[in-house]
Amino acid sequence: MPKIVNHDERKNLIAEAMWRVILDKGMEGATVRNIAEEAGLSLGALRYYFKTQDDLLVYAMDLVQERATKRIEAVLHKSLSPRELVIAMILEIVPVNTTTRIEMEVWFAFITYVKHRSDTIDVPEDQILEMTQRLLAFLQEHRLLKSSCQLEMEIERLYGLIDGLAIHAILNPDRLDPERVRNTIIYHIDSICH
Amino acid sequence: MPKIVNHDERKNLIAEAMWRVILDKGMEGATVRNIAEEAGLSLGALRYYFKTQDDLLVYAMDLVQERATKRIEAVLHKSLSPRELVIAMILEIVPVNTTTRIEMEVWFAFITYVKHRSDTIDVPEDQILEMTQRLLAFLQEHRLLKSSCQLEMEIERLYGLIDGLAIHAILNPDRLDPERVRNTIIYHIDSICH
Repeated sequence: MPKIVNHDERKNLIAEAMWRVILDKGMEGATVRNIAEEAGLSLGALRYYFKTQDDLLVYAMDLVQERATKRIEAVLHKSLSPRELVIAMILEIVPVNTTTRIEMEVWFAFITYVKHRSDTIDVPEDQILEMTQRLLAFLQEHRLLKSSCQLEMEIERLYGLIDGLAIHAILNPDRLDPERVRNTIIYHIDSICH
Repeated sequence: MPKIVNHDERKNLIAEAMWRVILDKGMEGATVRNIAEEAGLSLGALRYYFKTQDDLLVYAMDLVQERATKRIEAVLHKSLSPRELVIAMILEIVPVNTTTRIEMEVWFAFITYVKHRSDTIDVPEDQILEMTQRLLAFLQEHRLLKSSCQLEMEIERLYGLIDGLAIHAILNPDRLDPERVRNTIIYHIDSICH
């Protein structure tokens, strides 16, 4: 009987191999050859799943967002107060563990790389801005946001803080460790809430 | 009479040519050949000033910081209140005009690139963290910082916000325009000051 290989699973394994190559060698090292080797596949097999390197790139970017979205949705099923829920959701995307660190690092590598080629590649939208908008609207609906807060400015500030902390935690993990990332997020949310 | 060429000026012109190549083509395109062409020099002439590409890279990174430091020092000579001074200094590094946008964009390109090679290259320290520490200590000395503020957390938060806004302004300048960057910085400083 022929071995049954799940098509999507195989695509995910290749995308994850691409992530690991990027983490190790940077986007410069993310050649089709290196990715195939990391995935334990021949070049031909890789090309069966992804016709071009850009197809793989976009798939690997989408997979980062898909994984994060699933974890954020799982947080909704926990019994948490509105304030705890908001903090828990943010902690699913900032680098506080291996999973979030890897995702953020490859995401920034992707984004920096595709910046110079957005005319030829279908770059996925950054979902963190949208999440930030929802979280702050949620805090306001629950009347938790201090009256001195301006919603638009708070969105810009939290969005900036999330990606700024992420960059710093990736570039300098010894200085900005997971505990400090977590404390800064909690400190910020506490500062804008009653 | 032979033409007199200032050695440092020529090095700066080459470093700025490297910046322009990075802005246009990304770090992938920042080859010695492309940089020499952009600077209007032969490969041999470029190699006279910079023996290796890494020498040029480190010089070009240092030049980003040198330029920003000079502008920040110039702010000290203006007649500004402590609060205005802090805001003016931050606005010398976040992308609110062509100069700051170019510097931040090449800085991030450098930093992302050298991350995978810090064992072989002498990466300059990020001076923004140090500046953030000084600015917040300065606000505290002038008793402007709200009593509810924790200095260590405020440093982490402002440092994160500066680089987060910078990244977003670079990646999405249409959404986060200079006016909005400026307003968010002022909003943040106002929120932590009396």
